[in-house]
Amino acid sequence: EAACLAISAGLDVEMPKPYGYGQVLAEEDRRGNADIADVDTSVWRVLRAKFELGLFEDPYPAERIDVAAVAAEGTELSRELARRQVVLVKNDGMLPLTGGLDVAVIGPHADAAKFQFATYTYAAWREATDAVLSGELGNMLGSDDVTTPWYQALVTPVDPERLVRDRFGARSLANAISGHAARVRTERATTLTRPLDDEALTRAVELARESDVVVLALGGASLWFTGERTEGEASDTADISLPAAQTRLAESVAATGTPVVVVLVQGRAYALPEAVREAPAIVMTSYAGPFGPQAVAEVLFGVTNPSGKLPYSIPRHSGQIPVFHHQKAGSGYRNPLPANIDRHYLDLEATPLYPFAHGLSYTHFSLGDLSHDTRVSTDGTARIGVTVTNTGPLSGATVVQLYVRVDAKGLTRPAQQLAGFSRVETAPGESRRVTFHLAAAQLGHTGRARDFTVEPGRVGFFLGLDSEDRRVEGSFDLVGGNRVLTSDERAFLSDAVTEPV
Amino acid sequence: EAACLAISAGLDVEMPKPYGYGQVLAEEDRRGNADIADVDTSVWRVLRAKFELGLFEDPYPAERIDVAAVAAEGTELSRELARRQVVLVKNDGMLPLTGGLDVAVIGPHADAAKFQFATYTYAAWREATDAVLSGELGNMLGSDDVTTPWYQALVTPVDPERLVRDRFGARSLANAISGHAARVRTERATTLTRPLDDEALTRAVELARESDVVVLALGGASLWFTGERTEGEASDTADISLPAAQTRLAESVAATGTPVVVVLVQGRAYALPEAVREAPAIVMTSYAGPFGPQAVAEVLFGVTNPSGKLPYSIPRHSGQIPVFHHQKAGSGYRNPLPANIDRHYLDLEATPLYPFAHGLSYTHFSLGDLSHDTRVSTDGTARIGVTVTNTGPLSGATVVQLYVRVDAKGLTRPAQQLAGFSRVETAPGESRRVTFHLAAAQLGHTGRARDFTVEPGRVGFFLGLDSEDRRVEGSFDLVGGNRVLTSDERAFLSDAVTEPV
Repeated sequence: EAACLAISAGLDVEMPKPYGYGQVLAEEDRRGNADIADVDTSVWRVLRAKFELGLFEDPYPAERIDVAAVAAEGTELSRELARRQVVLVKNDGMLPLTGGLDVAVIGPHADAAKFQFATYTYAAWREATDAVLSGELGNMLGSDDVTTPWYQALVTPVDPERLVRDRFGARSLANAISGHAARVRTERATTLTRPLDDEALTRAVELARESDVVVLALGGASLWFTGERTEGEASDTADISLPAAQTRLAESVAATGTPVVVVLVQGRAYALPEAVREAPAIVMTSYAGPFGPQAVAEVLFGVTNPSGKLPYSIPRHSGQIPVFHHQKAGSGYRNPLPANIDRHYLDLEATPLYPFAHGLSYTHFSLGDLSHDTRVSTDGTARIGVTVTNTGPLSGATVVQLYVRVDAKGLTRPAQQLAGFSRVETAPGESRRVTFHLAAAQLGHTGRARDFTVEPGRVGFFLGLDSEDRRVEGSFDLVGGNRVLTSDERAFLSDAVTEPV
Repeated sequence: EAACLAISAGLDVEMPKPYGYGQVLAEEDRRGNADIADVDTSVWRVLRAKFELGLFEDPYPAERIDVAAVAAEGTELSRELARRQVVLVKNDGMLPLTGGLDVAVIGPHADAAKFQFATYTYAAWREATDAVLSGELGNMLGSDDVTTPWYQALVTPVDPERLVRDRFGARSLANAISGHAARVRTERATTLTRPLDDEALTRAVELARESDVVVLALGGASLWFTGERTEGEASDTADISLPAAQTRLAESVAATGTPVVVVLVQGRAYALPEAVREAPAIVMTSYAGPFGPQAVAEVLFGVTNPSGKLPYSIPRHSGQIPVFHHQKAGSGYRNPLPANIDRHYLDLEATPLYPFAHGLSYTHFSLGDLSHDTRVSTDGTARIGVTVTNTGPLSGATVVQLYVRVDAKGLTRPAQQLAGFSRVETAPGESRRVTFHLAAAQLGHTGRARDFTVEPGRVGFFLGLDSEDRRVEGSFDLVGGNRVLTSDERAFLSDAVTEPV
């Protein structure tokens, strides 16, 4: 019956191999339980996709595709994406670093480029296929009968670090920093999750002591099923903390007194130990591909002025999960504390350590001159404008964010929701005007009647540079009748127009 | 509108003071939004309750109620409840303790009786009212204008430890152990959450070293809003771990090498540090009132053979929460691991440290001779019988538990659910037959049509002495048509009949 439900719900393909489809579904059809029209619809969709790809005219490409050449087409885009995603999380004034320094790059991410390639990249897939070929993954995938012969025909085992360096021009953080510093020395000290021998830690501490600055490169790695990793498909941890081996390294390096910049290379948030939290500077990068470490080095040395924003909240502790900016009004850290109660938990603040969409710059921005519609029809659009001014000494970009709050009756909605955002580049002293076009169709909810409805009422909003930055607040009234929307009529993100002032 | 929804849903009384009722509801009525018949119904229910209590004939009791005398009526029941709830969590053979020992009772629960009284007991209420009277709680309750004058007229501040000892005859664990040991000395060493000075810890370690056995009395306390506590109304922690100060004490005491029994006094599960997990014996008690510590002492010295079962799973780590035995099939630790994957999390087992309904005895029990119906109508009752035999040297009781699994189509149901349990007392060598009467009305679910329906199909079950004990397994078929039940027709727990064999 699950097969019938799935095909009538529109599931075209079952992966990695047939379970409820295939023989089971054929049997259901024979018994008259399946609607064969649903099967026809799915077959039609799969075939249409194949026709559109031209697989029926030309099942195999006539010539060998030069993957490296294709990949090279995106190189500049890849570099720019890598630069834009770097987040300056904390800066006590230590960054940007000046030239001419003797830099120690320490930690599991110090001299590795391969960790920049997460599951569902080619490099990570090659690591998984190698594990299948070596028998390490065994029947894990449940589809070895299909995949193993295919892998055997197509690929030979390869060292992943060599692969990403040779094929994609990837470089490690230590490599990338070489171009900016007088001297760079590196020490891994620990793998992602396991301490190396004590001598490795001693060497790292010694190196930190001898250097002007430590770049402590910590974080995780995303792989499939196998290999040392902290995350990835079928891979998760119970404790969201940075692995203990890395915490020990951070404590040992911090104790030297040499200034430390922590670079976190991560695909998800870690709860950070005190030695990281108290570092004078923290920079976060996602697994950003071949040019991720170079983008980080550019930020560290001020070649790029960072403009990235955290794509998640950074929690204080595993026990605080889930913590996110759009918790419902009156729940979690969106539950206002009564007088005489100084925090939500007996043992911890309920707020995240760093909120969603937080991210610093080497320049400063002011927000002001709010203008907005005050009455908007439930089928209309509210214009909300604000001026962002670069008040600091450097050119730079920031991301202006619009959050809304719409209270409903009979159910509780989030205390705030991201409605729009716009990245704005400015020269020193320059102002630009950002105008969001917030459609009422973004503001509805599925109520007790199970219709998605936009109701008249008061809409609160704020504009800021992170999800806790309420420096510009306002509200407007939605007027007119209830408006019930189909899923096609819904809207999720406001357009924004940016103009010179 | 919230007020209208609440009163039409049947909410009679708003606490602690009017928010949506009162003026707001009166205004809604004036506007024609409230159905006055709903208000009448609520008023009628409140008045009926007052009439039934005789408040209209006799608003004040004619004479002063002797609370102590009333409380004394329940003394024997209170003692028996306290005995039955003690759980022997772990026993490497150290328990029961023999007489004539020199015992050190160490920890925040060593010599305190008051922590046995949780929120919503009189003793805890007195602590909260004292805090209101002293101004410490300020306007916390949002109803001071009502409660403060009332408290001022009725109560005077009292030391809670003195109150529970004088009024209820409560005794501490150290007091209770005195009756069973040659010598008892006690040292608090730490409060629940804060270390005392280093000398206190040193004295505790010294005492442990000089004693034959340490009873390490750790755990929590449940209070209202104020005072040192780990839980209670409006009181929670982000980290489910035993507080760090207690962990440090446990590590210091364990290092002495003196055998340690850990007594956990707790209202909820703690994630236990290694020094507790690795102790040779662990006993758990809830906040069990005046006779809780005496019940624990009786178990420690074998006067009572323990029969309590854990009312929750004990997790391994905060990051593993929620972990509970009735997780849905295919989720959490009920998701079977494929071959070549040795655990669910990269850093932790997904199973609880101790499962729901775990609890040891000083004797042993076997289960066998399963008999059960094989075909049961969807409006019938399945009989499932098993023989429990006391195979050990002592009289004792255990709790035989029946768990069921009913898979549904189109939605996922729990991998197992507790369907019934029966406490069985046996003499050494004695067998007793337990027969559960499992109504099909227990086995339905709310499906996609939103009706609560008992469907024909296979029902799996097992009988055991905890939620992971599948030593006796079986299944039967539910036959006949779908049966849709009203909420009155539902059943939640099987009756059990126990007979001599």
